[in-house]
Amino acid sequence: MLDHTHEPAARSWLDTANSPGTDFPVQNLPFAVFRRRGTAEGFRGGVAIGDQVLDLAALAADRPFDGLAAEALGAAAGDTLNDLMALGPPAWRALRYALFALLGSGASETSVRAARGALVPMNSVEYALPARIGNYTDFYTSIHHARNVGRVIRPDDPLTPNFQWMPIAYHGRASSVVVSGTPFRRPMGQAMAPGASAPFYGPCRQLDYELELGFYIGPGNALGEPVPISQARDHIFGMCLLNDWSARDHQFWEMAPLGPFLGKNFCTSVSPWVVTLDALAPYRVPFERPAGDPQPLGYLDDPAERADGGLDIALEVWLESAAHRARGLAPHRLSATSFRHQYWTIAQMLAQHTVGGCNLQPGDLLGTGTISGPTAPEAGAIVELSLGGTRAIELSSTGETRTFLEDGDSVILRGWCERPGAARIGFGECRGTVLPAMA
Amino acid sequence: MLDHTHEPAARSWLDTANSPGTDFPVQNLPFAVFRRRGTAEGFRGGVAIGDQVLDLAALAADRPFDGLAAEALGAAAGDTLNDLMALGPPAWRALRYALFALLGSGASETSVRAARGALVPMNSVEYALPARIGNYTDFYTSIHHARNVGRVIRPDDPLTPNFQWMPIAYHGRASSVVVSGTPFRRPMGQAMAPGASAPFYGPCRQLDYELELGFYIGPGNALGEPVPISQARDHIFGMCLLNDWSARDHQFWEMAPLGPFLGKNFCTSVSPWVVTLDALAPYRVPFERPAGDPQPLGYLDDPAERADGGLDIALEVWLESAAHRARGLAPHRLSATSFRHQYWTIAQMLAQHTVGGCNLQPGDLLGTGTISGPTAPEAGAIVELSLGGTRAIELSSTGETRTFLEDGDSVILRGWCERPGAARIGFGECRGTVLPAMA
Repeated sequence: MLDHTHEPAARSWLDTANSPGTDFPVQNLPFAVFRRRGTAEGFRGGVAIGDQVLDLAALAADRPFDGLAAEALGAAAGDTLNDLMALGPPAWRALRYALFALLGSGASETSVRAARGALVPMNSVEYALPARIGNYTDFYTSIHHARNVGRVIRPDDPLTPNFQWMPIAYHGRASSVVVSGTPFRRPMGQAMAPGASAPFYGPCRQLDYELELGFYIGPGNALGEPVPISQARDHIFGMCLLNDWSARDHQFWEMAPLGPFLGKNFCTSVSPWVVTLDALAPYRVPFERPAGDPQPLGYLDDPAERADGGLDIALEVWLESAAHRARGLAPHRLSATSFRHQYWTIAQMLAQHTVGGCNLQPGDLLGTGTISGPTAPEAGAIVELSLGGTRAIELSSTGETRTFLEDGDSVILRGWCERPGAARIGFGECRGTVLPAMA
Repeated sequence: MLDHTHEPAARSWLDTANSPGTDFPVQNLPFAVFRRRGTAEGFRGGVAIGDQVLDLAALAADRPFDGLAAEALGAAAGDTLNDLMALGPPAWRALRYALFALLGSGASETSVRAARGALVPMNSVEYALPARIGNYTDFYTSIHHARNVGRVIRPDDPLTPNFQWMPIAYHGRASSVVVSGTPFRRPMGQAMAPGASAPFYGPCRQLDYELELGFYIGPGNALGEPVPISQARDHIFGMCLLNDWSARDHQFWEMAPLGPFLGKNFCTSVSPWVVTLDALAPYRVPFERPAGDPQPLGYLDDPAERADGGLDIALEVWLESAAHRARGLAPHRLSATSFRHQYWTIAQMLAQHTVGGCNLQPGDLLGTGTISGPTAPEAGAIVELSLGGTRAIELSSTGETRTFLEDGDSVILRGWCERPGAARIGFGECRGTVLPAMA
């Protein structure tokens, strides 16, 4: 999988793409849908490079590429990336190679001129969802999260018996997926207080976030035709940061027997930037089960998954309260972990999703479920960090405390890959802010 | 709500619309999307009248209506009904009145000529889904079904404590909703046999149907803005028959803690015809809670719902095995019940869905959940009729038995409203056939 587009020494002619800490060097080349902020321009596809966005619609007008790369560029120039996602790996790679050549330090003068004419400063753009999301599915694949939350709901039996045998999932709500930066109202709903005989209706009292990664479906499959595990990777276009906001009091009251519904469907936030699987290739790691744990059944097992089905993606959650903003203070880091601790790989999730014949379509969004690492400070949701709301978390710089989220709180997810001998591959951020409940 | 379009004495100039047993008299006027079978014609909206389909695209070309009715006719002439659904009750009613005048016995000669030119025999058409379904949600609102199934899974505690306080629901899979007549493969998947220490992978061994009604969303709501119960009816375009096929062995193994996923997402069938809420108005009945049961919380309570939130829709499930077909025998009736026994109204379901701010969009599909009546033979799923697969059901005419569905079985749902002093309003049928699992 390693090719010249992963060379750590590769540079761009755009200086900001060569800064050591940038999320967007020439080896990354993630996609988004954007326009200049505050304008009535049409949204179109863009690629991040340093502190700029390469406008793919403007670039396409110049016809800089041929063949598959030109086809993929055309598909990426519209107001969603669904057409690009539908094309599949050969077209994705052709476009990646062409963009790498265009933006790399070896580009011709003509290329540089064409690309420069299509650059828009990233700090001047706004984003739309990268895809028209037909269906959104959320998995539940961190054993540490499952144990942490399980202890809150079912102290005697935190891990359900199916967890180690299949990547568990539920269908989420596609219509309420929003792009980073979109605020949302604290949801109203029903909850049952401990010991009460009747539920009450009111604003959520246990509002939480969930640190997740999402992945977008490429070509997909016809109804009734499962995707074998060995082909699953070819159906994944790329990954994003995802925050599965959760109203825990509503969720815990409603979820027996059919799972989460209103506790989740009021809002789900995704990062604007979609990092391709190709860009993540240098950060693949072996996927290994702890000794003594059940091995995956045949339809979920594949040598390639064992070899490098894991992904070492560093992840952080930050909280910025209204007080942080008012006093100009930096946000507080709530937790940090890596995706490499996940119990199932994204290819296994995709194979599981289709094993009964369910059809995935280009632009569908699959979430990994909350990503919590093996130690307590690595938990990916506040219900875990606060032990079900029983232990207050102190926000260092303001002295405030939290057991759940307050109105005005912004939660910021960050993700990146980094190690010696490879270029840093970043995801940017995924941000959302809690507005007060409706009066 | 009663108006002249419900007059039981009203007749059409088309004789087959006046036959006593027809599902489609002039008082009904349900919508579908269709084309002539076996052609490459574009799909377009149609209205059922007797044994004919009124082609709304052909009719629209004649410009027979003015104002709102003309706008609604134009919106119904495309390849989905989403645009018509988005218009809302005044436009729906304007079109209903105009179609009633066009097809009623009092129509002018010019009207009759225009309409006759747009009729297509129903037995020569094929259907598409009536809407582009952005999101599909399935409720769980029959207390009899909840108790019947609960006894199979949780003998000690069949009814979860939340059931009587809220219409429970989960998100379903929109991409695998198919129109009546589409066969589907028995799904592969994972199940845990009783007493086993590891699950097995194979074809579903407990394939089931679920008798449901569905309803399509009209204008819908913006994210963060709940629809009050008093306005909920205005957001429901109409109803259909719905079969929520279920792989019980897969479902029961996977559903703790996050609910059904692969056990449901391989296929959901809907009838082609959507019966409008206006056509169902004469069959509204009082919605009353059994004495001693909790009353709905304020946000789910409304005088109009108490007055006539229920709907008396007769429903039947029929099984046609391969042997029935081979021997030319009529299918076997498995059960019959009415929707009036449901524990929550469709307006309450819609209000609950949006109470936290979740946005519904035109064409979204909501299912009522399995409809089982108060007595054992009224159960809406075979897992209930066969007591979890422990009691074989004899198919009268062939002598075959069933505990769950076999390959080659077709399940046919039928629904209609009928009482003295009102015109019969029928739903047609919803049919699906089980194909063998993939080799």
